[in-house]
Amino acid sequence: MTPRDTKELLLQAGMELFLERGYSATGLQDILERAGVPKGSFYHHFGSKEEFGVEMLDLYASQGIEMMEQHLAAQGNGDERPVLGRLRGYYEAQAEALASCSCRKGCLMGSLGDELANVSEAIRDKVESRSGRFLERIAQALREAQERGELRPGADTDRLAEFCNASWHGALHQMKIRRSPEPLQIFLTTVFDELLTAA
Amino acid sequence: MTPRDTKELLLQAGMELFLERGYSATGLQDILERAGVPKGSFYHHFGSKEEFGVEMLDLYASQGIEMMEQHLAAQGNGDERPVLGRLRGYYEAQAEALASCSCRKGCLMGSLGDELANVSEAIRDKVESRSGRFLERIAQALREAQERGELRPGADTDRLAEFCNASWHGALHQMKIRRSPEPLQIFLTTVFDELLTAA
Repeated sequence: MTPRDTKELLLQAGMELFLERGYSATGLQDILERAGVPKGSFYHHFGSKEEFGVEMLDLYASQGIEMMEQHLAAQGNGDERPVLGRLRGYYEAQAEALASCSCRKGCLMGSLGDELANVSEAIRDKVESRSGRFLERIAQALREAQERGELRPGADTDRLAEFCNASWHGALHQMKIRRSPEPLQIFLTTVFDELLTAA
Repeated sequence: MTPRDTKELLLQAGMELFLERGYSATGLQDILERAGVPKGSFYHHFGSKEEFGVEMLDLYASQGIEMMEQHLAAQGNGDERPVLGRLRGYYEAQAEALASCSCRKGCLMGSLGDELANVSEAIRDKVESRSGRFLERIAQALREAQERGELRPGADTDRLAEFCNASWHGALHQMKIRRSPEPLQIFLTTVFDELLTAA
Protein backbone atom coordinates (compact mmCIF):
# COMPACT_ATOMS: atom_id res chain seq x y z
CA MET A 1 0.00 0.00 0.00
CA THR A 2 1.47 3.37 -0.99
CA PRO A 3 1.24 6.37 1.36
CA ARG A 4 -1.21 7.86 -1.10
CA ASP A 5 -3.52 4.82 -0.83
CA THR A 6 -3.36 5.06 2.95
CA LYS A 7 -4.31 8.72 2.89
CA GLU A 8 -7.25 8.04 0.61
CA LEU A 9 -8.40 5.12 2.78
CA LEU A 10 -8.32 7.35 5.84
CA LEU A 11 -10.24 10.16 4.15
CA GLN A 12 -12.83 7.75 2.78
CA ALA A 13 -13.32 6.00 6.13
CA GLY A 14 -13.52 9.33 7.96
CA MET A 15 -16.05 10.69 5.49
CA GLU A 16 -18.38 7.75 5.98
CA LEU A 17 -18.11 7.96 9.76
CA PHE A 18 -18.53 11.74 9.94
CA LEU A 19 -21.61 11.47 7.71
CA GLU A 20 -23.09 8.71 9.83
CA ARG A 21 -22.22 9.78 13.38
CA GLY A 22 -20.99 13.34 13.16
CA TYR A 23 -17.52 14.71 13.83
CA SER A 24 -17.32 14.80 17.63
CA ALA A 25 -18.88 11.38 18.13
CA THR A 26 -16.31 9.79 15.80
CA GLY A 27 -13.05 8.89 17.50
CA LEU A 28 -9.70 8.61 15.78
CA GLN A 29 -9.71 4.92 16.71
CA ASP A 30 -13.00 4.39 14.80
CA ILE A 31 -11.43 5.90 11.70
CA LEU A 32 -8.26 3.80 11.96
CA GLU A 33 -10.27 0.62 12.44
CA ARG A 34 -12.53 1.26 9.50
CA ALA A 35 -9.60 2.19 7.27
CA GLY A 36 -7.52 -0.70 8.60
CA VAL A 37 -4.37 1.37 9.07
CA PRO A 38 -2.18 1.98 12.14
CA LYS A 39 -2.26 5.18 14.17
CA GLY A 40 1.15 6.36 13.01
CA SER A 41 -0.12 6.59 9.44
CA PHE A 42 -2.74 9.11 10.47
CA TYR A 43 -0.23 11.51 11.95
CA HIS A 44 2.06 10.97 9.00
CA HIS A 45 -0.62 12.53 6.78
CA PHE A 46 -2.56 14.85 9.05
CA GLY A 47 -1.49 17.14 11.88
CA SER A 48 -4.77 16.78 13.78
CA LYS A 49 -8.38 15.62 13.51
CA GLU A 50 -9.34 19.19 12.59
CA GLU A 51 -6.78 19.29 9.76
CA PHE A 52 -8.11 15.93 8.60
CA GLY A 53 -11.64 17.39 8.57
CA VAL A 54 -10.55 20.42 6.57
CA GLU A 55 -8.77 18.30 3.97
CA MET A 56 -11.78 15.99 3.76
CA LEU A 57 -14.06 18.97 3.10
CA ASP A 58 -11.79 20.04 0.24
CA LEU A 59 -12.00 16.59 -1.31
CA TYR A 60 -15.76 16.32 -0.78
CA ALA A 61 -16.43 19.79 -2.20
CA SER A 62 -14.25 19.17 -5.26
CA GLN A 63 -16.10 15.95 -6.04
CA GLY A 64 -19.44 17.65 -5.40
CA ILE A 65 -18.83 20.65 -7.64
CA GLU A 66 -17.64 18.34 -10.43
CA MET A 67 -20.86 16.36 -10.15
CA MET A 68 -22.90 19.55 -10.26
CA GLU A 69 -20.96 20.76 -13.30
CA GLN A 70 -21.60 17.46 -15.10
CA HIS A 71 -25.33 17.99 -14.71
CA LEU A 72 -25.41 21.70 -15.49
CA ALA A 73 -22.89 22.13 -18.31
CA ALA A 74 -24.11 22.51 -21.87
CA GLN A 75 -23.42 19.41 -23.96
CA GLY A 76 -21.90 21.12 -26.97
CA ASN A 77 -22.82 24.48 -28.52
CA GLY A 78 -26.50 25.25 -28.64
CA ASP A 79 -27.57 22.64 -26.05
CA GLU A 80 -31.33 23.14 -26.07
CA ARG A 81 -32.15 21.27 -22.85
CA PRO A 82 -33.82 23.62 -20.35
CA VAL A 83 -31.33 24.87 -17.79
CA LEU A 84 -33.84 24.48 -14.95
CA GLY A 85 -34.36 20.88 -16.06
CA ARG A 86 -30.62 20.26 -15.75
CA LEU A 87 -30.58 21.82 -12.29
CA ARG A 88 -33.55 19.69 -11.26
CA GLY A 89 -31.75 16.65 -12.69
CA TYR A 90 -28.80 17.41 -10.45
CA TYR A 91 -30.96 17.53 -7.34
CA GLU A 92 -32.90 14.42 -8.42
CA ALA A 93 -29.66 12.47 -8.79
CA GLN A 94 -28.60 13.63 -5.33
CA ALA A 95 -31.98 12.66 -3.89
CA GLU A 96 -31.71 9.19 -5.39
CA ALA A 97 -28.21 8.66 -4.02
CA LEU A 98 -29.26 9.85 -0.55
CA ALA A 99 -32.34 7.64 -0.46
CA SER A 100 -30.15 4.67 -1.37
CA CYS A 101 -28.19 5.25 1.88
CA SER A 102 -31.43 4.73 3.87
CA CYS A 103 -31.64 8.52 4.33
CA ARG A 104 -28.97 8.35 7.00
CA LYS A 105 -26.31 10.50 5.36
CA GLY A 106 -26.74 14.12 4.42
CA CYS A 107 -24.16 16.54 3.06
CA LEU A 108 -20.75 16.56 4.73
CA MET A 109 -20.38 20.32 4.41
CA GLY A 110 -23.82 20.82 5.90
CA SER A 111 -23.39 18.39 8.77
CA LEU A 112 -19.89 19.44 9.77
CA GLY A 113 -20.72 23.09 9.25
CA ASP A 114 -23.71 22.95 11.53
CA GLU A 115 -22.05 20.87 14.21
CA LEU A 116 -18.77 22.78 14.32
CA ALA A 117 -19.62 26.35 13.30
CA ASN A 118 -18.85 27.60 16.83
CA VAL A 119 -16.25 24.96 17.71
CA SER A 120 -13.74 25.04 14.86
CA GLU A 121 -13.16 28.25 12.94
CA ALA A 122 -11.04 26.32 10.41
CA ILE A 123 -13.96 24.01 9.60
CA ARG A 124 -16.53 26.85 9.55
CA ASP A 125 -14.34 28.92 7.26
CA LYS A 126 -13.73 26.00 4.90
CA VAL A 127 -17.45 25.17 4.69
CA GLU A 128 -18.31 28.81 4.04
CA SER A 129 -15.72 29.29 1.31
CA ARG A 130 -16.44 25.98 -0.42
CA SER A 131 -20.20 26.55 -0.30
CA GLY A 132 -19.64 29.81 -2.13
CA ARG A 133 -18.60 27.94 -5.26
CA PHE A 134 -21.84 25.91 -5.28
CA LEU A 135 -23.88 29.05 -4.75
CA GLU A 136 -22.16 30.82 -7.64
CA ARG A 137 -22.78 27.89 -9.95
CA ILE A 138 -26.48 27.72 -9.04
CA ALA A 139 -26.82 31.49 -9.50
CA GLN A 140 -25.16 31.20 -12.91
CA ALA A 141 -27.64 28.49 -13.93
CA LEU A 142 -30.54 30.69 -12.80
CA ARG A 143 -29.20 33.64 -14.83
CA GLU A 144 -28.94 31.41 -17.90
CA ALA A 145 -32.49 30.17 -17.29
CA GLN A 146 -33.65 33.76 -17.05
CA GLU A 147 -31.91 34.72 -20.31
CA ARG A 148 -33.70 31.83 -22.04
CA GLY A 149 -37.08 32.83 -20.66
CA GLU A 150 -37.39 29.80 -18.35
CA LEU A 151 -37.39 32.02 -15.25
CA ARG A 152 -39.46 35.20 -14.88
CA PRO A 153 -37.58 38.39 -15.84
CA GLY A 154 -37.78 40.16 -12.47
CA ALA A 155 -36.53 37.23 -10.37
CA ASP A 156 -33.51 37.94 -8.15
CA THR A 157 -31.27 35.07 -9.25
CA ASP A 158 -28.63 35.57 -6.54
CA ARG A 159 -31.23 35.51 -3.78
CA LEU A 160 -33.05 32.53 -5.28
CA ALA A 161 -29.77 30.62 -5.56
CA GLU A 162 -29.10 31.21 -1.87
CA PHE A 163 -32.63 30.25 -0.97
CA CYS A 164 -32.49 27.01 -2.99
CA ASN A 165 -29.17 26.05 -1.49
CA ALA A 166 -30.37 26.72 2.05
CA SER A 167 -33.68 24.93 1.45
CA TRP A 168 -31.90 21.90 0.07
CA HIS A 169 -29.86 21.67 3.26
CA GLY A 170 -33.05 22.02 5.26
CA ALA A 171 -34.58 19.17 3.25
CA LEU A 172 -31.53 16.96 3.92
CA HIS A 173 -31.87 17.75 7.57
CA GLN A 174 -35.54 16.71 7.67
CA MET A 175 -34.71 13.60 5.65
CA LYS A 176 -32.24 12.50 8.32
CA ILE A 177 -34.61 13.20 11.20
CA ARG A 178 -37.57 11.49 9.58
CA ARG A 179 -35.55 8.76 7.84
CA SER A 180 -37.63 9.44 4.78
CA PRO A 181 -36.88 10.73 1.27
CA GLU A 182 -40.16 12.68 1.28
CA PRO A 183 -38.61 16.04 2.29
CA LEU A 184 -36.37 15.81 -0.79
CA GLN A 185 -39.39 15.26 -3.03
CA ILE A 186 -41.15 18.18 -1.36
CA PHE A 187 -38.10 20.34 -2.13
CA LEU A 188 -38.10 19.28 -5.80
CA THR A 189 -41.82 19.87 -6.31
CA THR A 190 -42.00 23.17 -4.48
CA VAL A 191 -38.83 24.71 -5.89
CA PHE A 192 -39.15 23.57 -9.51
CA ASP A 193 -42.93 23.59 -9.97
CA GLU A 194 -43.86 26.60 -7.88
CA LEU A 195 -40.91 28.88 -7.15
CA LEU A 196 -38.65 28.83 -10.21
CA THR A 197 -41.27 29.51 -12.83
CA ALA A 198 -41.38 31.45 -16.10
CA ALA A 199 -44.27 33.69 -15.09
CA MET B 1 -31.72 26.15 46.14
CA THR B 2 -34.58 23.68 45.70
CA PRO B 3 -34.13 20.51 43.62
CA ARG B 4 -36.43 22.08 41.07
CA ASP B 5 -34.18 25.14 40.75
CA THR B 6 -31.19 22.86 40.29
CA LYS B 7 -32.91 20.93 37.56
CA GLU B 8 -33.85 24.12 35.74
CA LEU B 9 -30.31 25.49 36.09
CA LEU B 10 -28.91 22.30 34.58
CA LEU B 11 -31.36 22.30 31.67
CA GLN B 12 -30.75 25.99 30.97
CA ALA B 13 -26.95 25.60 31.09
CA GLY B 14 -27.09 22.50 28.91
CA MET B 15 -29.32 24.20 26.38
CA GLU B 16 -26.92 27.11 25.96
CA LEU B 17 -23.94 24.79 25.60
CA PHE B 18 -25.64 22.37 23.21
CA LEU B 19 -26.74 25.31 21.04
CA GLU B 20 -23.25 26.79 21.02
CA ARG B 21 -21.01 23.74 20.74
CA GLY B 22 -23.25 20.82 19.88
CA TYR B 23 -24.10 17.78 21.97
CA SER B 24 -21.03 15.57 21.61
CA ALA B 25 -18.53 18.39 22.09
CA THR B 26 -20.19 19.41 25.37
CA GLY B 27 -18.98 17.45 28.36
CA LEU B 28 -20.97 16.84 31.52
CA GLN B 29 -18.32 18.82 33.38
CA ASP B 30 -18.96 21.88 31.16
CA ILE B 31 -22.65 21.72 32.05
CA LEU B 32 -22.00 21.36 35.77
CA GLU B 33 -19.56 24.27 35.75
CA ARG B 34 -21.88 26.57 33.87
CA ALA B 35 -24.82 25.65 36.10
CA GLY B 36 -22.67 25.83 39.22
CA VAL B 37 -23.96 22.57 40.68
CA PRO B 38 -22.17 19.39 41.82
CA LYS B 39 -22.10 16.20 39.76
CA GLY B 40 -24.37 14.28 42.11
CA SER B 41 -27.19 16.71 41.37
CA PHE B 42 -27.08 15.81 37.72
CA TYR B 43 -27.59 12.12 38.35
CA HIS B 44 -30.25 12.89 40.92
CA HIS B 45 -32.35 14.39 38.11
CA PHE B 46 -31.22 12.61 34.95
CA GLY B 47 -30.24 9.02 34.26
CA SER B 48 -27.81 9.92 31.48
CA LYS B 49 -26.72 12.67 29.14
CA GLU B 50 -29.11 11.26 26.55
CA GLU B 51 -32.06 11.39 28.96
CA PHE B 52 -31.03 14.96 29.81
CA GLY B 53 -31.08 15.80 26.07
CA VAL B 54 -34.52 14.26 25.60
CA GLU B 55 -35.97 16.18 28.55
CA MET B 56 -34.36 19.38 27.29
CA LEU B 57 -35.95 18.89 23.88
CA ASP B 58 -39.36 18.55 25.55
CA LEU B 59 -38.84 21.80 27.42
CA TYR B 60 -37.50 23.61 24.36
CA ALA B 61 -40.31 22.40 22.12
CA SER B 62 -43.00 23.34 24.65
CA GLN B 63 -41.62 26.86 24.94
CA GLY B 64 -41.29 27.07 21.15
CA ILE B 65 -44.81 25.97 20.34
CA GLU B 66 -46.18 28.40 22.92
CA MET B 67 -44.29 31.23 21.25
CA MET B 68 -45.60 30.17 17.85
CA GLU B 69 -49.14 30.01 19.20
CA GLN B 70 -48.83 33.52 20.65
CA HIS B 71 -48.02 34.86 17.21
CA LEU B 72 -50.55 32.83 15.25
CA ALA B 73 -53.62 32.75 17.47
CA ALA B 74 -56.53 35.03 16.69
CA GLN B 75 -56.84 37.87 19.19
CA GLY B 76 -60.54 37.53 19.90
CA ASN B 77 -63.34 36.60 17.54
CA GLY B 78 -63.10 38.02 14.05
CA ASP B 79 -59.40 38.94 14.24
CA GLU B 80 -58.88 40.57 10.84
CA ARG B 81 -55.07 40.48 10.75
CA PRO B 82 -53.86 38.43 7.78
CA VAL B 83 -52.86 34.93 8.89
CA LEU B 84 -49.78 34.96 6.65
CA GLY B 85 -48.77 38.24 8.28
CA ARG B 86 -48.96 36.59 11.69
CA LEU B 87 -46.86 33.66 10.48
CA ARG B 88 -44.31 36.06 9.01
CA GLY B 89 -44.32 37.94 12.32
CA TYR B 90 -43.44 34.73 14.11
CA TYR B 91 -40.46 34.08 11.86
CA GLU B 92 -39.39 37.73 12.03
CA ALA B 93 -39.36 37.59 15.82
CA GLN B 94 -37.27 34.41 15.69
CA ALA B 95 -34.88 36.02 13.19
CA GLU B 96 -34.43 39.02 15.46
CA ALA B 97 -33.72 36.86 18.49
CA LEU B 98 -31.23 34.73 16.56
CA ALA B 99 -29.39 37.76 15.15
CA SER B 100 -29.08 39.13 18.69
CA CYS B 101 -27.05 35.99 19.60
CA SER B 102 -24.47 36.93 16.93
CA CYS B 103 -25.99 34.25 14.67
CA ARG B 104 -24.22 31.56 16.66
CA LYS B 105 -27.23 29.65 17.93
CA GLY B 106 -29.78 27.93 15.75
CA CYS B 107 -32.67 25.71 16.77
CA LEU B 108 -31.99 23.06 19.40
CA MET B 109 -34.25 20.52 17.72
CA GLY B 110 -32.56 21.15 14.40
CA SER B 111 -29.01 21.01 15.71
CA LEU B 112 -29.43 17.99 17.96
CA GLY B 113 -31.55 16.23 15.37
CA ASP B 114 -28.95 16.63 12.65
CA GLU B 115 -26.00 15.75 14.83
CA LEU B 116 -27.58 12.74 16.53
CA ALA B 117 -30.07 11.30 14.03
CA ASN B 118 -27.92 8.19 13.57
CA VAL B 119 -26.37 8.16 17.04
CA SER B 120 -29.29 8.36 19.45
CA GLU B 121 -32.65 6.92 18.47
CA ALA B 122 -34.21 8.49 21.57
CA ILE B 123 -33.13 11.97 20.45
CA ARG B 124 -34.09 11.40 16.81
CA ASP B 125 -37.51 10.12 17.81
CA LYS B 126 -38.11 13.03 20.18
CA VAL B 127 -37.10 15.60 17.54
CA GLU B 128 -39.33 13.95 14.95
CA SER B 129 -42.38 13.76 17.19
CA ARG B 130 -41.98 17.29 18.58
CA SER B 131 -41.40 18.76 15.11
CA GLY B 132 -44.72 17.26 14.06
CA ARG B 133 -46.60 19.68 16.32
CA PHE B 134 -44.91 22.71 14.71
CA LEU B 135 -45.64 21.35 11.25
CA GLU B 136 -49.32 20.83 12.11
CA ARG B 137 -49.61 24.37 13.45
CA ILE B 138 -48.01 25.87 10.33
CA ALA B 139 -50.26 23.76 8.08
CA GLN B 140 -53.30 24.92 10.05
CA ALA B 141 -52.24 28.56 9.54
CA LEU B 142 -51.83 27.97 5.81
CA ARG B 143 -55.31 26.39 5.61
CA GLU B 144 -56.78 29.40 7.40
CA ALA B 145 -54.91 31.71 5.01
CA GLN B 146 -56.32 29.77 2.08
CA GLU B 147 -59.88 29.97 3.43
CA ARG B 148 -59.48 33.74 3.71
CA GLY B 149 -58.14 34.08 0.16
CA GLU B 150 -54.61 35.03 1.24
CA LEU B 151 -53.16 31.88 -0.34
CA ARG B 152 -54.05 30.59 -3.82
CA PRO B 153 -56.87 28.01 -3.84
CA GLY B 154 -54.89 25.12 -5.37
CA ALA B 155 -51.92 25.32 -3.00
CA ASP B 156 -51.05 22.12 -1.14
CA THR B 157 -50.96 23.48 2.41
CA ASP B 158 -49.49 20.36 4.02
CA ARG B 159 -46.62 20.25 1.54
CA LEU B 160 -45.99 23.97 1.80
CA ALA B 161 -45.92 23.74 5.60
CA GLU B 162 -43.26 21.02 5.40
CA PHE B 163 -41.30 23.00 2.84
CA CYS B 164 -41.38 26.18 4.94
CA ASN B 165 -40.31 24.31 8.06
CA ALA B 166 -37.43 22.58 6.25
CA SER B 167 -36.34 25.79 4.53
CA TRP B 168 -36.31 27.66 7.81
CA HIS B 169 -33.96 25.05 9.23
CA GLY B 170 -31.81 25.39 6.13
CA ALA B 171 -31.71 29.15 6.63
CA LEU B 172 -30.66 28.72 10.28
CA HIS B 173 -27.93 26.41 9.13
CA GLN B 174 -26.59 28.92 6.61
CA MET B 175 -26.85 31.68 9.22
CA LYS B 176 -24.56 29.73 11.54
CA ILE B 177 -22.03 28.92 8.83
CA ARG B 178 -21.90 32.46 7.49
CA ARG B 179 -22.38 34.18 10.85
CA SER B 180 -24.86 36.43 9.13
CA PRO B 181 -28.61 37.07 9.49
CA GLU B 182 -28.91 37.44 5.70
CA PRO B 183 -30.11 33.84 5.06
CA LEU B 184 -33.02 34.50 7.45
CA GLN B 185 -33.99 37.62 5.49
CA ILE B 186 -33.73 35.65 2.25
CA PHE B 187 -36.10 33.06 3.73
CA LEU B 188 -38.62 35.75 4.76
CA THR B 189 -38.59 37.52 1.39
CA THR B 190 -38.71 34.41 -0.77
CA VAL B 191 -41.31 32.51 1.24
CA PHE B 192 -43.68 35.36 2.04
CA ASP B 193 -43.31 37.54 -1.07
CA GLU B 194 -42.91 34.87 -3.72
CA LEU B 195 -44.08 31.45 -2.57
CA LEU B 196 -47.07 31.98 -0.27
CA THR B 197 -49.08 34.25 -2.51
CA ALA B 198 -52.76 34.76 -3.26
CA ALA B 199 -52.48 34.18 -6.99
